Amino acid sequence: MQHADFLLIGGTVLTMDDAFRQYPQGAVAICGDTIAAVGPADDVSAHYTASEVIDCTGCCVMPGLVNCHTHLPMTLLRGLADDLRLDVWLYGYMLPVERKFVSPEFVALGTQLACAEMIRSGVTFVNDMYYFEDTIARTIAEVGLRALCSQTIMQFPTPDASSADESLEFTEKFISTWKGHPLIVPVIAPHAPYTCSGPLMRACAEIAIRHDVPLHIHISETYQEVEDSRREHGMPVVNWVKKNGVLEAKVIAAHCVAIDAGEMRTLRNAGATVAHNPSANLKLASGIANVQQMLKTGLCVGIGTDGPASNNDLDHFEEIRLAALLAKGSTRDPVAVPARTALLMATRMGAAALHMGHLTGSLEVGKRADVIVLELDRLHTTPRYADIAIGSDAIYTQIVYSSKSTDVRDVFVNGKPLMRERTLLTLDEATIKTQAHRMAQQIHFFLVAREGDVLRKLAAIGGVQQEESFEVQVKARIDDPQPVIDFINHSGEITIVRHVHYRQYDTYFFFADEPSRLRYREDERLDETGKVVGSRYRLTLVSGQSEREYPHSILLSRVRFMSPADRSLRFYREYFRPAREVEIQKDRLRWEVFYEDEEFFINIDRLVNPPHEGYFLEVKSRTWSRRDAERKAEVIGKLLSRLGISDDAVLRQEYVQIVEESHVQAER
Amino acid sequence: MQHADFLLIGGTVLTMDDAFRQYPQGAVAICGDTIAAVGPADDVSAHYTASEVIDCTGCCVMPGLVNCHTHLPMTLLRGLADDLRLDVWLYGYMLPVERKFVSPEFVALGTQLACAEMIRSGVTFVNDMYYFEDTIARTIAEVGLRALCSQTIMQFPTPDASSADESLEFTEKFISTWKGHPLIVPVIAPHAPYTCSGPLMRACAEIAIRHDVPLHIHISETYQEVEDSRREHGMPVVNWVKKNGVLEAKVIAAHCVAIDAGEMRTLRNAGATVAHNPSANLKLASGIANVQQMLKTGLCVGIGTDGPASNNDLDHFEEIRLAALLAKGSTRDPVAVPARTALLMATRMGAAALHMGHLTGSLEVGKRADVIVLELDRLHTTPRYADIAIGSDAIYTQIVYSSKSTDVRDVFVNGKPLMRERTLLTLDEATIKTQAHRMAQQIHFFLVAREGDVLRKLAAIGGVQQEESFEVQVKARIDDPQPVIDFINHSGEITIVRHVHYRQYDTYFFFADEPSRLRYREDERLDETGKVVGSRYRLTLVSGQSEREYPHSILLSRVRFMSPADRSLRFYREYFRPAREVEIQKDRLRWEVFYEDEEFFINIDRLVNPPHEGYFLEVKSRTWSRRDAERKAEVIGKLLSRLGISDDAVLRQEYVQIVEESHVQAER
Repeated sequence: MQHADFLLIGGTVLTMDDAFRQYPQGAVAICGDTIAAVGPADDVSAHYTASEVIDCTGCCVMPGLVNCHTHLPMTLLRGLADDLRLDVWLYGYMLPVERKFVSPEFVALGTQLACAEMIRSGVTFVNDMYYFEDTIARTIAEVGLRALCSQTIMQFPTPDASSADESLEFTEKFISTWKGHPLIVPVIAPHAPYTCSGPLMRACAEIAIRHDVPLHIHISETYQEVEDSRREHGMPVVNWVKKNGVLEAKVIAAHCVAIDAGEMRTLRNAGATVAHNPSANLKLASGIANVQQMLKTGLCVGIGTDGPASNNDLDHFEEIRLAALLAKGSTRDPVAVPARTALLMATRMGAAALHMGHLTGSLEVGKRADVIVLELDRLHTTPRYADIAIGSDAIYTQIVYSSKSTDVRDVFVNGKPLMRERTLLTLDEATIKTQAHRMAQQIHFFLVAREGDVLRKLAAIGGVQQEESFEVQVKARIDDPQPVIDFINHSGEITIVRHVHYRQYDTYFFFADEPSRLRYREDERLDETGKVVGSRYRLTLVSGQSEREYPHSILLSRVRFMSPADRSLRFYREYFRPAREVEIQKDRLRWEVFYEDEEFFINIDRLVNPPHEGYFLEVKSRTWSRRDAERKAEVIGKLLSRLGISDDAVLRQEYVQIVEESHVQAER
Repeated sequence: MQHADFLLIGGTVLTMDDAFRQYPQGAVAICGDTIAAVGPADDVSAHYTASEVIDCTGCCVMPGLVNCHTHLPMTLLRGLADDLRLDVWLYGYMLPVERKFVSPEFVALGTQLACAEMIRSGVTFVNDMYYFEDTIARTIAEVGLRALCSQTIMQFPTPDASSADESLEFTEKFISTWKGHPLIVPVIAPHAPYTCSGPLMRACAEIAIRHDVPLHIHISETYQEVEDSRREHGMPVVNWVKKNGVLEAKVIAAHCVAIDAGEMRTLRNAGATVAHNPSANLKLASGIANVQQMLKTGLCVGIGTDGPASNNDLDHFEEIRLAALLAKGSTRDPVAVPARTALLMATRMGAAALHMGHLTGSLEVGKRADVIVLELDRLHTTPRYADIAIGSDAIYTQIVYSSKSTDVRDVFVNGKPLMRERTLLTLDEATIKTQAHRMAQQIHFFLVAREGDVLRKLAAIGGVQQEESFEVQVKARIDDPQPVIDFINHSGEITIVRHVHYRQYDTYFFFADEPSRLRYREDERLDETGKVVGSRYRLTLVSGQSEREYPHSILLSRVRFMSPADRSLRFYREYFRPAREVEIQKDRLRWEVFYEDEEFFINIDRLVNPPHEGYFLEVKSRTWSRRDAERKAEVIGKLLSRLGISDDAVLRQEYVQIVEESHVQAER
């Protein structure tokens, strides 16, 4: 007779092992962190006594669920902004709020909330990707869940690093700290191909390989991403990441909504795995990943909830059900991804997708004791064809199509109980809820202060299309544009990509108690003879102040949102009811150029109405990172000097300010 | 001061009225069956005292949910057979089990189970479509829910009627009995265009119009249905039902997965409404209905769970969430069907979709008190941006994307409490569960006896494609085929649709303890010169006995399942491990013909191996209804007589029996 810590006995034991063994009257013995025995109740109880015998009659004893992709602390942003375009949601709400609020305290609280929800949903193993991952790892380890903790790397400043270099550095330390922990596997996560350069990708892959840890990345979440990759790199996303060495690591590719058959084979051949996120892919309208084809290709596919801000919860039962249903509906094949396969993706295959299949994901002797007890005898699962089944698959279909996360009764991870009879043992839910509500209130007030009504109204009419962006820019008064034009055309120092002549009609809306202005712009494009050959209408929300100033009054400014203006000026006037309006007409010669390997826009503007003497030179460049902005400011400074523009000529004001000041002067 | 029966106070009151009014600290007063007051808590409590004041702090008080399409008693078939092709699921499992088990007792029990589940899910109003609808209506009325009870009409025999005439007759009585009931609206439900003839459709519509009750029908659930309609009627489904007078009634069209823009306009112009069933449409792989376009067209669209055998539950929260998510994912528009619209479809618009918008669906003074109390302060809905919202839509996104059915605390219908603090007041769950499990066991034993292991194994390897079918058939020994061939070609009484020459290689698998046989058939099609021009492989599960016998030994037999055999004979042999095998090779001349306006197949067969003297004539026709089978048997009898086949020549045996008998004779 051997001794076990726990003996789970009397329920249906669903092993999810290779042979999909089931024991209708089964038992599982847990010794320490390990599964010591699995089998018919009589057999197991003949060999084991236990410190605690847990009656599982009417329940299913099964492997804990594996959530293969999420951003746990985003529980705190759940319900903050929904039913918006992906870019508005991401750039308009998530990123700004994250920049402002995400701190070690924030991620710890959000992770606790997420862990409580996951345990209640029967999840025992999760793959997180976020910032301050060291804090997240510590929080999860304290709670007692199993996790891959993926530290996010981006080429832009992030809430936990002002540069990619900085984040690479502390990520290596993070990996060294946690490598070998019984519950936590540290992971490096170059966020996505559109937020990491090729060299940065390569650097991340090298770290993953050197430390032999997985690499977690968003791949082809949207069709737009693939289009962009084909345009910029001349190849689809998987090929590009492969080219940058990423697939040499143990990759977990999240989403893969828009990968083709060739990319699937490439991932499979590299041993990369996929985290499928059905709810988030629908909610953000990214599309429907072809999971059936992935499985046919031999790819290992797990299921993820994605972050709770795009789901909006961590209910893994909903996710599994949707994975099964969506595969059928989207392929019009009712036998696509049957229930058993869906549950496999959420257990054994899910663990394998996290490159941890050897350790967990099924109830097998020697594996870690990550076990849940699910009540089968609920009203919504009545009657039960499971144990008198036509096919032995009936229990899978019951769990996948009818069971709910609220049917989970007990949860064990690594042999330790985390929930018993629906009571959490390692978390204080009431405190977490109180703190989370407090945090939500702060975020709310921040957004109300930042956004006011204008942005909200702008979003409400839809069409907000382009992200918040940052520009490094300088404006200078010039008397004669010809020297500048000559320099652009003939210096040999500048490569012209494109040259356009515009007549621009801008109407600025000013609001009370709101520093931002909304600009309605009509651009008429003119040909050499001055004939109008095209026009476009745009609405832009301009931040009222600059974010930073560099030498020579070069400014870093923020454009909040831009959208095509597909309605009349009258409509916008009535809709936004501005406190004040200013109209400006100007003539603009615009060049898109490369100078010192950096891309710039050069404008030579003349204010036509209200008329204003002389010309204005503008040099602008889009930027995202602080370091990049500094570099660009430096190059602009150099260009100004090559153009002979002195610091005296440089202006801090926007055109609308210049016009208003001359108006005031004229009135004096 | 007025007196109310109930005062629900302190929660957020979500009215779902025209203006989407919300009262963050609101109250609802219920007097009798009616909402007497809705508004800010202070206002309402200033005017009303109540027999019972219910504290709704931390909750949302909102209209009960409306389930616009389901088949309630099918709760008892939940999980019986999943992940199968639609036709196998329907014809192989649902219809046979329904034919055997559906009785007034069955529907009463199934309806009780469904009502319990619906109340727990916050549903207060449901549109059912099933058999024995009078019993269902009585059951629902006793429970206290509000319902449309739609009596199914088909041109085939159903569990509650041996003919359409019979069902039309008792449906009229049913309507007369229930018309005017405070909770129940009787409805006529011609099942679908593919189960009702044009004249039957017209008869149903006339009854609906005469009694001024709604008409409930399945429309364009699958693309196949539309294809069939175009082929058979030369028009899409909506046009065909319109042509048959259906749209003159108050129509509720379930599914509408495959209707086009023109059909949407036709439905809208007729005042017809749509019941959208996202889960079932996915699960049965029918596709994804274009709800966004329906709403843009101005159609009134409600949400249904469909029957619990194709869902597999009645959780309306899952359904609403999926309706919102699926619209976004399938259109790639993240603002498609926002949360508020989805909840509208499940409340006010849902009630309107059931042509009862004047009575229920929103919290408005004078409407019936169909009210639920939903707990908002749950772990999975933490934090809450709802009452400090960026947009006032936050409460809708919380309910649609994060809340669960298990968050429903109290349910009132027609002013009566049906659930308080999660306890059902009008149903005994324990008894229902026990009885449901007992019923499931009976169904299971019936299926096990009927199907044995062979079918289960057949289904397990997939590809089971064609439904169970019934054939009226006769076989006769003939010495000389020429007179038959001459009659077919030259009598002028027969119209030949197609003529083929086959060489057929059949291998029969026999099993121990199993009357069915599995036939592996290789058909080689020959041209006039005897050259093989094509071949096909099929697997057929043949019932061991005939279902019925008509004069002249004309038999009604059942073919259980048929599928393309895309694997080798060796594979099937090893997979099914038959107890015994018999091989037969024959030569077949086959004609597809019309005789007396009925379609028949005529085979002239010669047994090549084992060789057998003479020829065999077979006349066969597919059938579905008993009356149709009788008519066909009669026509076959007439044809036999025209061909000069005497009753002596007619054989009851199948070829495999003929071959075995001669073998036995040869051995003697």
